[in-house]
Amino acid sequence: MKHLIDPLDLSVAEIDAMLNLADDIAAHPQKYAHACDGKKLATLFYEPSTRTRLSFETAMLNMGGSVMGFHSASTSSATKGESVADTIRVVSCFADVCAMRHPKEGAPRRAAHFSKIPVINAGDGGHQHPTQTLTDLMTIRSKRGRLDHLTIGLCGDLKFGRTVHSLIKSLARYTGIQFVLISPEELRVPSYILEEALTPNGIPYEETTDLEANLPRLDILYMTRVQKERFFNEADYVRLKDSYILTAEKLKAAKPNLYVLHPLPRVNEISMDVDDDPRAAYFDQVQNGVYVRQALILTLLGVKLPC
Amino acid sequence: MKHLIDPLDLSVAEIDAMLNLADDIAAHPQKYAHACDGKKLATLFYEPSTRTRLSFETAMLNMGGSVMGFHSASTSSATKGESVADTIRVVSCFADVCAMRHPKEGAPRRAAHFSKIPVINAGDGGHQHPTQTLTDLMTIRSKRGRLDHLTIGLCGDLKFGRTVHSLIKSLARYTGIQFVLISPEELRVPSYILEEALTPNGIPYEETTDLEANLPRLDILYMTRVQKERFFNEADYVRLKDSYILTAEKLKAAKPNLYVLHPLPRVNEISMDVDDDPRAAYFDQVQNGVYVRQALILTLLGVKLPC
Amino acid sequence: MKHLIDPLDLSVAEIDAMLNLADDIAAHPQKYAHACDGKKLATLFYEPSTRTRLSFETAMLNMGGSVMGFHSASTSSATKGESVADTIRVVSCFADVCAMRHPKEGAPRRAAHFSKIPVINAGDGGHQHPTQTLTDLMTIRSKRGRLDHLTIGLCGDLKFGRTVHSLIKSLARYTGIQFVLISPEELRVPSYILEEALTPNGIPYEETTDLEANLPRLDILYMTRVQKERFFNEADYVRLKDSYILTAEKLKAAKPNLYVLHPLPRVNEISMDVDDDPRAAYFDQVQNGVYVRQALILTLLGVKLPC
Repeated sequence: MKHLIDPLDLSVAEIDAMLNLADDIAAHPQKYAHACDGKKLATLFYEPSTRTRLSFETAMLNMGGSVMGFHSASTSSATKGESVADTIRVVSCFADVCAMRHPKEGAPRRAAHFSKIPVINAGDGGHQHPTQTLTDLMTIRSKRGRLDHLTIGLCGDLKFGRTVHSLIKSLARYTGIQFVLISPEELRVPSYILEEALTPNGIPYEETTDLEANLPRLDILYMTRVQKERFFNEADYVRLKDSYILTAEKLKAAKPNLYVLHPLPRVNEISMDVDDDPRAAYFDQVQNGVYVRQALILTLLGVKLPC
Repeated sequence: MKHLIDPLDLSVAEIDAMLNLADDIAAHPQKYAHACDGKKLATLFYEPSTRTRLSFETAMLNMGGSVMGFHSASTSSATKGESVADTIRVVSCFADVCAMRHPKEGAPRRAAHFSKIPVINAGDGGHQHPTQTLTDLMTIRSKRGRLDHLTIGLCGDLKFGRTVHSLIKSLARYTGIQFVLISPEELRVPSYILEEALTPNGIPYEETTDLEANLPRLDILYMTRVQKERFFNEADYVRLKDSYILTAEKLKAAKPNLYVLHPLPRVNEISMDVDDDPRAAYFDQVQNGVYVRQALILTLLGVKLPC
Repeated sequence: MKHLIDPLDLSVAEIDAMLNLADDIAAHPQKYAHACDGKKLATLFYEPSTRTRLSFETAMLNMGGSVMGFHSASTSSATKGESVADTIRVVSCFADVCAMRHPKEGAPRRAAHFSKIPVINAGDGGHQHPTQTLTDLMTIRSKRGRLDHLTIGLCGDLKFGRTVHSLIKSLARYTGIQFVLISPEELRVPSYILEEALTPNGIPYEETTDLEANLPRLDILYMTRVQKERFFNEADYVRLKDSYILTAEKLKAAKPNLYVLHPLPRVNEISMDVDDDPRAAYFDQVQNGVYVRQALILTLLGVKLPC
């Protein structure tokens, strides 16, 4: 493996290995404190994403490496008309590994084609965001002890949310998974995803508009933000954004070992009174995101630790 | 102590200890060169302030730590509607200590409430800027050998200048202090500050519009910028901004051991011909600001150096 | 030497020494991996230039140092009206060496005048960009083994391109150099440069509009971008920008040991089908730029390595 562009670039076995490494990093952070001494990560963010960027930077700094890059296209050479192909060839002279966020789908894959260093897709348009998927998988596995035989609820904007699509495709490779897809009619999972990822693999799924009725049978509830920037008009946004708000009250009906995930940032789709519930796992996700990115950087750089 | 939000969060004894530590750092910088190895500072600047941000970053880098963060709200998740409470919980997974600059008063205190890591207020609106106050106190103490029994002149915009308000409140806790408050009528110190900080403690003060007449009796002259962004209309700004300009000529009438401070940036309120006068202490302030921030970070992180 | 503002600040002997050091860094990077431990570089970029900034940052990080700064004027104190003189005095308290990019000609020289730390001009308006010139010289020397007795073709925008002007002046100090200046009539080298740098030194040069006819006799072809921002009107830009495009087809007529340089970013003046030709040296330039900047930082800081 040289790059990580699509979550499905990784086999189930590779994901298991990655998550095992991430678990070890979480358990023994000091062991990895100098694993990347002298290495450099470039964070090429053509659109801002503070949380993702800082997570990558933390991952590298946690291992003794250093960081450089840009935070938005307005401060990058892109404004002078440079192609992604040229930028990555230039950055290949600077850094050892690169995380790229780009508003255009496919830009990180194109960059990877011309790069001399490993490229990590840190989100390309509405397309892929593989390190978020790894983060989600690590969180589910660490909370429930497994990635198979789980009833997974996905709630909110299932049409535009790229993290939802990637998670569906990734979990569809495990046995005994079933999905409950909770969304307004207008924001259902696109049919091509259901047809490609679920139907051929015989994965049971159910589409519903009702969060409360389905909450009691879920093992995992993955909430998503209704992203304003994905809507075509303001009226649709206002009408739909409050449709699915999780509260402490509603959560009373859920299993004691349900876990609530959210890719963050949230606006109001999870009430703050849920935050102190031990089933709230969304800030654990943030912490796991750092470990997973550490594991990924180590793997892509081929770093071997002395025993 | 867990956070530093308001300069008065620190007792006089705590300030003394902090300044003693800062003095030791200034005298023996190498002793602290690895005091924060492996530690990370997050600089969360919701509005730009290059000087303050770089001072914090220098402080951390001087002790072997590393730095991450954002420089303005436009490149942060704030644009996606994330609350300060969520942002700090996320950043708590990334960094060991955080410096927050925010245009809204109270934002750093709210962040501290939700944070798992120490939060330092790096300026919140027109409200508080405690590390500037520590810097000012260190500079006065190092130049004059004490923080008591001094006649302190404050000149310029005394109405909107938050550094002035914090300095008044902090110095009011020492004995033998008297203030000479030099400003245009329109920009006098707000009465609630005089009533809260000076009157009950019996601190003598005098309000005047005349810089030159009062210069000879001052031990410290604290100049401030007339900040354009604090004015409601352009005409007021133009009329008042040149009212109080300190020049080498005027300085002839001052004591030989007067020291001139300024929080910077200056525009033209101190003439450049003052810069080479040994009484000009405003660039010393910048250097002291780094030492004070090093001392603060060490204190908040609870770092103990081996003897 | 204290600062580097103009490429001609360096004597031919100093340039030789700098390039020798850069060659040694390229050959033995590990030898320099801790040469700047504990040192800090400030990158003060009043206008964005990602490639140049990241090259400086890489140079410092490669030697164990750390980096701070700002990426554009909008996030700097310049917006509060601070002068370059004050900014550099402040930054002198923070960093050990500084690289400044500024839209105004002369700003880095003025900063150097007030600085307590070495200032490197990282580009000032259309004026100077000395580290680009060092990069160009290193690339020519490493590819051709020498800087004298070469026929140098310069092609594209020779009027506004500051890298071209600096390169002409620098190469004019070596013996046996001749120039072929290939440009549209409207974008010829300004006459004062020819009169100052070439005529008095008896350097032969030829001005032509024809790239193809002159390609066969060149030892070096230095291509430049037709920078949109230098044009006064859009129509002129559109008419001229495609005038000089180098393609693999055209390159067939060139010498086998011709080398093609370009300061990057390119838009379309070098076709991508040239990239895999061994004579394409523009990405080598990027790598050399890092080594040259490492050599420069070491020299300005007076770092001596233990043998």
